Amino acid sequence: MAKNQIKVVEKIFDANDRIANENLRRINESKTYSINLMASPGAGKTSFILATINALLDEGVKIGVIEGDTAPVTIDSDKISAAGMPAVQVNTGGQCHLDAVMVEAALDQLPLDEIDLLIVENVGNLICPAAFKLGTHSSVVISSVPEGDDKPYKYPNIYRGLEVLIINKIDLLPYLDFDMEYFSKGVEMLNPGLHTFPLSCKTGEGLAPWLTWLRSKLPNK
Amino acid sequence: MAKNQIKVVEKIFDANDRIANENLRRINESKTYSINLMASPGAGKTSFILATINALLDEGVKIGVIEGDTAPVTIDSDKISAAGMPAVQVNTGGQCHLDAVMVEAALDQLPLDEIDLLIVENVGNLICPAAFKLGTHSSVVISSVPEGDDKPYKYPNIYRGLEVLIINKIDLLPYLDFDMEYFSKGVEMLNPGLHTFPLSCKTGEGLAPWLTWLRSKLPNK
Repeated sequence: MAKNQIKVVEKIFDANDRIANENLRRINESKTYSINLMASPGAGKTSFILATINALLDEGVKIGVIEGDTAPVTIDSDKISAAGMPAVQVNTGGQCHLDAVMVEAALDQLPLDEIDLLIVENVGNLICPAAFKLGTHSSVVISSVPEGDDKPYKYPNIYRGLEVLIINKIDLLPYLDFDMEYFSKGVEMLNPGLHTFPLSCKTGEGLAPWLTWLRSKLPNK
Repeated sequence: MAKNQIKVVEKIFDANDRIANENLRRINESKTYSINLMASPGAGKTSFILATINALLDEGVKIGVIEGDTAPVTIDSDKISAAGMPAVQVNTGGQCHLDAVMVEAALDQLPLDEIDLLIVENVGNLICPAAFKLGTHSSVVISSVPEGDDKPYKYPNIYRGLEVLIINKIDLLPYLDFDMEYFSKGVEMLNPGLHTFPLSCKTGEGLAPWLTWLRSKLPNK
């Protein structure tokens, strides 16, 4: 890249980080815990959010969701609304990731003071979302077993700097050649000691340890 | 976007298209048929290439492969080389798609005159690769059934302007809630009459119709 190009890119990231910091300030003010949820297309982001909503419903945990999509569709935000939780759909206009400005605009449309947990569902993409801070407390990535056990080796950036890794669709393990040891070795090299929760949103298996981790982060409002 | 920004973006696409045209000229000169293969991470791009190589091996079809990866790993290109075919690995340095310049550099390293079919395996991503022409004859997208039946609705751009859609991993259909009619309806809206081949690279089921289509495109060298 030419020097001028590098300067422009740096300026974009600086501006994004500034707005991300302001987003985090607002979220903290509301005593809300917040997550940037990233994954490949079809890894099960929305199913994971719905499973989490349903599991915590009886405990009175209010979960708000920002749904990032590249197209003007409301498939995912409709599912969240149907589950009784506030959802805002953000259409990125073809862009391959959310950025802090988009989240800033979405925050205006959520009753943040009432929300215990804010989940920002990023665009389905293992590359670009990793480069843009949104102003959330933690980053959670979902890997699904049908994607294969070589993903940490091929898409290393997304596994760095995250707090939690969900390994979804473990109900399909008997039908796949997925080497959990090889996968985990790749993750461990990139992010030693990372909290990892293998589970199935379909059967509910393995959800409990994830919920325990999550409860420890939720505020007392 | 500001006017200046739009101008810069247009200039990038113009330059890319110019080099893509030059790539196509070189590929045509060698009487090679060429494919830009795109998909989500883990949809089975490399397995699909290997299944195609193995199926056409006895017919003496020589297949060259350009492997696009965001990280400096040779997992996929090693598999192609092990199958006895020439492969070039392109590391995009974190970038989320291949572009015409990267393909141009890779072409220099392939014995194009001897190759009947060139497959360019793009970076695993359903968004960005759709925006950059590489100079291939056709675009092929692989959707895998574990990704879910709503992908055409959520990632419409990738389904437009392609020649062939592969629906991979149909051996997993009995274990998934995948509505083929809903999926196909979404594809049909975006790309009416698209050649679509449901198959399983694992079991070999459904490969034959794809191979018939492909044979009709291969040159007589």
